[in-house]
Amino acid sequence: MADFIRADGRSVNQLRPLRFQNHIAPYAAGSTLIEWGKTRVICAVTIEESVPRWMKEQKVTGGWLTAEYSMLPYSTLERKPRDISKGKLDGRSSEIQRLIGRSIRAAVNLEKFGPRTVCVDCDVLQADGGTRTAAITGAFVALSLAVKKLIAEKKLVESPLLASVAAVSIGIVEGRALLDLCYTEDVAATVDMNLVMNAAGEFIELQGSGEEATFTEAQLAELIATGKAGIRDLLVAQQAAITQG
Amino acid sequence: MADFIRADGRSVNQLRPLRFQNHIAPYAAGSTLIEWGKTRVICAVTIEESVPRWMKEQKVTGGWLTAEYSMLPYSTLERKPRDISKGKLDGRSSEIQRLIGRSIRAAVNLEKFGPRTVCVDCDVLQADGGTRTAAITGAFVALSLAVKKLIAEKKLVESPLLASVAAVSIGIVEGRALLDLCYTEDVAATVDMNLVMNAAGEFIELQGSGEEATFTEAQLAELIATGKAGIRDLLVAQQAAITQG
Amino acid sequence: MADFIRADGRSVNQLRPLRFQNHIAPYAAGSTLIEWGKTRVICAVTIEESVPRWMKEQKVTGGWLTAEYSMLPYSTLERKPRDISKGKLDGRSSEIQRLIGRSIRAAVNLEKFGPRTVCVDCDVLQADGGTRTAAITGAFVALSLAVKKLIAEKKLVESPLLASVAAVSIGIVEGRALLDLCYTEDVAATVDMNLVMNAAGEFIELQGSGEEATFTEAQLAELIATGKAGIRDLLVAQQAAITQG
Amino acid sequence: MADFIRADGRSVNQLRPLRFQNHIAPYAAGSTLIEWGKTRVICAVTIEESVPRWMKEQKVTGGWLTAEYSMLPYSTLERKPRDISKGKLDGRSSEIQRLIGRSIRAAVNLEKFGPRTVCVDCDVLQADGGTRTAAITGAFVALSLAVKKLIAEKKLVESPLLASVAAVSIGIVEGRALLDLCYTEDVAATVDMNLVMNAAGEFIELQGSGEEATFTEAQLAELIATGKAGIRDLLVAQQAAITQG
Amino acid sequence: MADFIRADGRSVNQLRPLRFQNHIAPYAAGSTLIEWGKTRVICAVTIEESVPRWMKEQKVTGGWLTAEYSMLPYSTLERKPRDISKGKLDGRSSEIQRLIGRSIRAAVNLEKFGPRTVCVDCDVLQADGGTRTAAITGAFVALSLAVKKLIAEKKLVESPLLASVAAVSIGIVEGRALLDLCYTEDVAATVDMNLVMNAAGEFIELQGSGEEATFTEAQLAELIATGKAGIRDLLVAQQAAITQG
Amino acid sequence: MADFIRADGRSVNQLRPLRFQNHIAPYAAGSTLIEWGKTRVICAVTIEESVPRWMKEQKVTGGWLTAEYSMLPYSTLERKPRDISKGKLDGRSSEIQRLIGRSIRAAVNLEKFGPRTVCVDCDVLQADGGTRTAAITGAFVALSLAVKKLIAEKKLVESPLLASVAAVSIGIVEGRALLDLCYTEDVAATVDMNLVMNAAGEFIELQGSGEEATFTEAQLAELIATGKAGIRDLLVAQQAAITQG
Repeated sequence: MADFIRADGRSVNQLRPLRFQNHIAPYAAGSTLIEWGKTRVICAVTIEESVPRWMKEQKVTGGWLTAEYSMLPYSTLERKPRDISKGKLDGRSSEIQRLIGRSIRAAVNLEKFGPRTVCVDCDVLQADGGTRTAAITGAFVALSLAVKKLIAEKKLVESPLLASVAAVSIGIVEGRALLDLCYTEDVAATVDMNLVMNAAGEFIELQGSGEEATFTEAQLAELIATGKAGIRDLLVAQQAAITQG
Repeated sequence: MADFIRADGRSVNQLRPLRFQNHIAPYAAGSTLIEWGKTRVICAVTIEESVPRWMKEQKVTGGWLTAEYSMLPYSTLERKPRDISKGKLDGRSSEIQRLIGRSIRAAVNLEKFGPRTVCVDCDVLQADGGTRTAAITGAFVALSLAVKKLIAEKKLVESPLLASVAAVSIGIVEGRALLDLCYTEDVAATVDMNLVMNAAGEFIELQGSGEEATFTEAQLAELIATGKAGIRDLLVAQQAAITQG
Repeated sequence: MADFIRADGRSVNQLRPLRFQNHIAPYAAGSTLIEWGKTRVICAVTIEESVPRWMKEQKVTGGWLTAEYSMLPYSTLERKPRDISKGKLDGRSSEIQRLIGRSIRAAVNLEKFGPRTVCVDCDVLQADGGTRTAAITGAFVALSLAVKKLIAEKKLVESPLLASVAAVSIGIVEGRALLDLCYTEDVAATVDMNLVMNAAGEFIELQGSGEEATFTEAQLAELIATGKAGIRDLLVAQQAAITQG
Repeated sequence: MADFIRADGRSVNQLRPLRFQNHIAPYAAGSTLIEWGKTRVICAVTIEESVPRWMKEQKVTGGWLTAEYSMLPYSTLERKPRDISKGKLDGRSSEIQRLIGRSIRAAVNLEKFGPRTVCVDCDVLQADGGTRTAAITGAFVALSLAVKKLIAEKKLVESPLLASVAAVSIGIVEGRALLDLCYTEDVAATVDMNLVMNAAGEFIELQGSGEEATFTEAQLAELIATGKAGIRDLLVAQQAAITQG
Repeated sequence: MADFIRADGRSVNQLRPLRFQNHIAPYAAGSTLIEWGKTRVICAVTIEESVPRWMKEQKVTGGWLTAEYSMLPYSTLERKPRDISKGKLDGRSSEIQRLIGRSIRAAVNLEKFGPRTVCVDCDVLQADGGTRTAAITGAFVALSLAVKKLIAEKKLVESPLLASVAAVSIGIVEGRALLDLCYTEDVAATVDMNLVMNAAGEFIELQGSGEEATFTEAQLAELIATGKAGIRDLLVAQQAAITQG
Repeated sequence: MADFIRADGRSVNQLRPLRFQNHIAPYAAGSTLIEWGKTRVICAVTIEESVPRWMKEQKVTGGWLTAEYSMLPYSTLERKPRDISKGKLDGRSSEIQRLIGRSIRAAVNLEKFGPRTVCVDCDVLQADGGTRTAAITGAFVALSLAVKKLIAEKKLVESPLLASVAAVSIGIVEGRALLDLCYTEDVAATVDMNLVMNAAGEFIELQGSGEEATFTEAQLAELIATGKAGIRDLLVAQQAAITQG
């Protein structure tokens, strides 16, 4: 099946080209513009020197990490109105930013951040499928850059990072498991999975969904295997981006 | 490991007691109060004789199905303020109602509903863990009762139902995979999974999440196996509730 | 006029059948599902161990009691969208919950609650007229159960309850004063009155309204007399429900 | 008891001085500034040449009348933040504007307005008790002025007004029934009643409320008798204001 | 060009008639109803004995002054829905209230107010062009009355007022610079300017805008010269109103 | 005075370095990232093939152009919460987007766009003063790129652009008129002016504001002269960016 060539020339288990443009937002503690195929997401990490009220009330020590996700209105082929113009956060955005938060929290030891709130913002500049996986993958780079800076500024003595985290989508399109779906593939997919893993090969989050369809245990196994290989490639690219600073 | 006895007396792969009180809300087309251990969710299906505007604009035929999920303020040990008092839908509720919608849509052929909107409402009366899986499992019963009624009223000629759908949670607590977590187990779990499957043994949705933790492929396999067995028991209980009418 | 038989078989001064299903929401301090004809309302009382900020600022001692009222979306024959989907509380709900709050506050000595907030929640499961009077009548039962529990738990040494409170609607339909209107009678009524009274035969609240109509002093007297008799029956039913625990 | 002199020099059944300054808002179809003691309310009626969507959908003919009530931020001794700064309509305002709407609708034959919406706006410039009764009493004057104008402009051939409508508050303060409470009396009252009546001596709305207190049937009778006398005086003052144009 | 006679009989550099009705809202610390041609704006100043949180946090001493602007729904020929009915502040209102705030802050030494918040409220009763300049001009009168009162009450020892502030609009209509545009002139203007100046002849704010048009440096000079003359007349009228008390 | 050297090495009438990165958001019809000193704003133009409802109702022909402005949360040194998290648009953002809209509308003949809505979005990536002037200056580049594309796609036969539009800030700091203020200069300025001009040397918008200060006619003249020179340099840079495509 590996011989199948996708509309954009990729093989079934090939990622779209990946590029990081670090420091896109220099006032953030760390930031990167992840370009993954035609998908582009600004990932920025800012640090607040306080923790949410519930942590104080419940006397939880250490820091907190929260994430926000938004699609810029010009990120889609048809303009997407801003949340504020409708007065409420889009349900899909809410779901995605909760996923980003859980995924990145699994990458850090919050205790080591001290009484700080780490804010991860992901703003989609162009959406061609896989914006949530791009957001997670880019957010880890932005966070790593922020940690470097905090250490350089002597605000942290040791890194709170546990292991690199990356995410990829996999889907079943016309019966084939495809890695890293672009938008047209995503629309055609009968099953859609998002996989978040770390550098130790462990799962952080696994979400498989058959919108108006179902999938078998064999398909699940194939999707996971395909995704795991993709994650390995992503971790390499991430590391290069972080090292380059 | 099957010898391990949980705090509430259950074995690791045993469901909490399940009971359905149908027609709890008689003005709905179909409704049931699912009582699953101490968790209680009102599931009600209402039918609107129209479809959302986007379907008309995009000339999509058939019907639509949408879901809403809410926790009643007295469903938790500490009172939970209503969404309206904060002016916005809770992020968790938004995520759960999207999951319910996808899960139940996978159970039906929307085309066969004709130009109608099927509204699935799930209101939690008591929350002791597993409210989203109770909502999905109960919603399918409520939907089945609604379909019976529509057929009896000659509004439908054949059933749009494809296969029964049920959902269960599984988690890893102190290294053990446990079926159907109650609240205290849920809080202690390092990995939390929700599994939605149909009567054909196919997956509809699989969400595994290691909040501030990770899981291995072996653990994933054990979680899935444990969950599948639970789903089988649920489908039997659902069928009994639907037959009883 | 007492010979007149209403569409549902009742005489003009007869209540619809009344039933209380206590402890419908066991995590509340007290709760009951009041079924009054086809009208069904979940009444639940929860206790917060703090008082509103304005009481602290104004140095008011004792407790506070507040009420919220909501119609579940499947409580009406045509689905009623949730308040949160419109982003604001319905004007009618706002008016009703203020009435419930005033009525139940008149039943208690707030000073004796200590620095606590008593939250009364009324959620309509089925609406066939008289939901506000059912909410008040049920709320007093739920509150009584909550007080019993607080006394049993030694959180209160004596009961803050002053006298039982019940409410009933009365209306003029085709020139006749009818007790306890169902929905179709309510729609047909030219005058609509809600009466809240206590076990001492005193008035707590009296609201008579001639929507696009008027009423005379003689009609007012007849409405009050009819209502008072209904209240007496309600107080008996309430007492039975409270005693049964 | 009539010998009792109130703090402001009035007898128990005496109204505060009443004055109407018509045409305060000349772009409205009709408007008046009612000054009633220290209470001042701008009442303005505007006409829209269309009806609400629900009337079209339900094929209801004739016109509609709706009311809005708001307290200007400088109307109280302590500045009251605008509703918009809190993002939602105050519960009390919502309740009052519903009362104004019902009361004024009872004064007109909506059918005769043709397919128009009559908007009654009441903005409180100074609040010294009785703002809702001032709003209703002033609104009827503003409406009468608007009807005169519509007839003069040949937009209406005959008046849709049925009978004059006025409203007054009555309360029990230190055991005495007092007519037309000012703010300090309102705060001290154990029972508070609002009475809306028409020129035919009929009741339109009667709301008696014992906030944290109760009242007997004898007290109710006294309150009503006191209020009825006040209404008669109000109707005379209204008529003078309308005639003066 | 001075011979040109405008539709309402004025010369090009003539203001509309101006009148102040002080103490329109007696519970405010200072208030006036400015009537300027057919434009009418209620300007009221209230004082809160506290400062905004940001001042405390940033340890800024002295007082603060903030402004709010709103159009009453019956101030326009076609009824304007209230902000609260749309759930958000109108963009134009937001812009105007920021302008009023800046303009009036330039008239005072905030330090001398002590730790107080001065709230300037401007509510438009009738809108015939120039409502923002009327709001500023009237607000200064209301503020002066409030300062007089605070001094009389010994709450202030010396006046925090620096210099009188007034505002006027100027526009280019059919090539001519016209002072103080009424609504129909405003609609016809290709260039619209608002000028805020003080009694020392200094500029506080200058906003010139060519909506879908442009203007030259020569036109700018003429607009400013015309406006300056108007400001002089306004300052005289203001002073008379303040003196009269 | 021209010898004065500013903190960042510039002379008093020197712009900060300017750079345009076109096509930053390729799904927009036209887009550019304007980098002006440390200020960075994403400007994107999207086209909707419809016009607002009010244009249809008022039968206005041609197109419409609207603008939105937002600061990304990581654009400031201290994280700025998103508008949606507070539920309402920031007053300053509202004012700025209205200015952008007016300025860009003055640059086009809307009639020639046909029945389309041109949406101009400006999102600030980094804020170091002058974000509104950067937004206007960048928006004109993005619009020019969009017009080129529409002509290339034969959707427009001729350009609706009338003249290039650019904007710059000028301020008085320690008595000196400075061109193009950075953030620290902006904070220190006693007078702040924004100037929007076109390639014909005409004014489109002029806003001078002395927050808690004033300015004289001589200072106004100096500010305008300084600004005009800056605009000329900006127009050259813009043209180069547009030509490069």
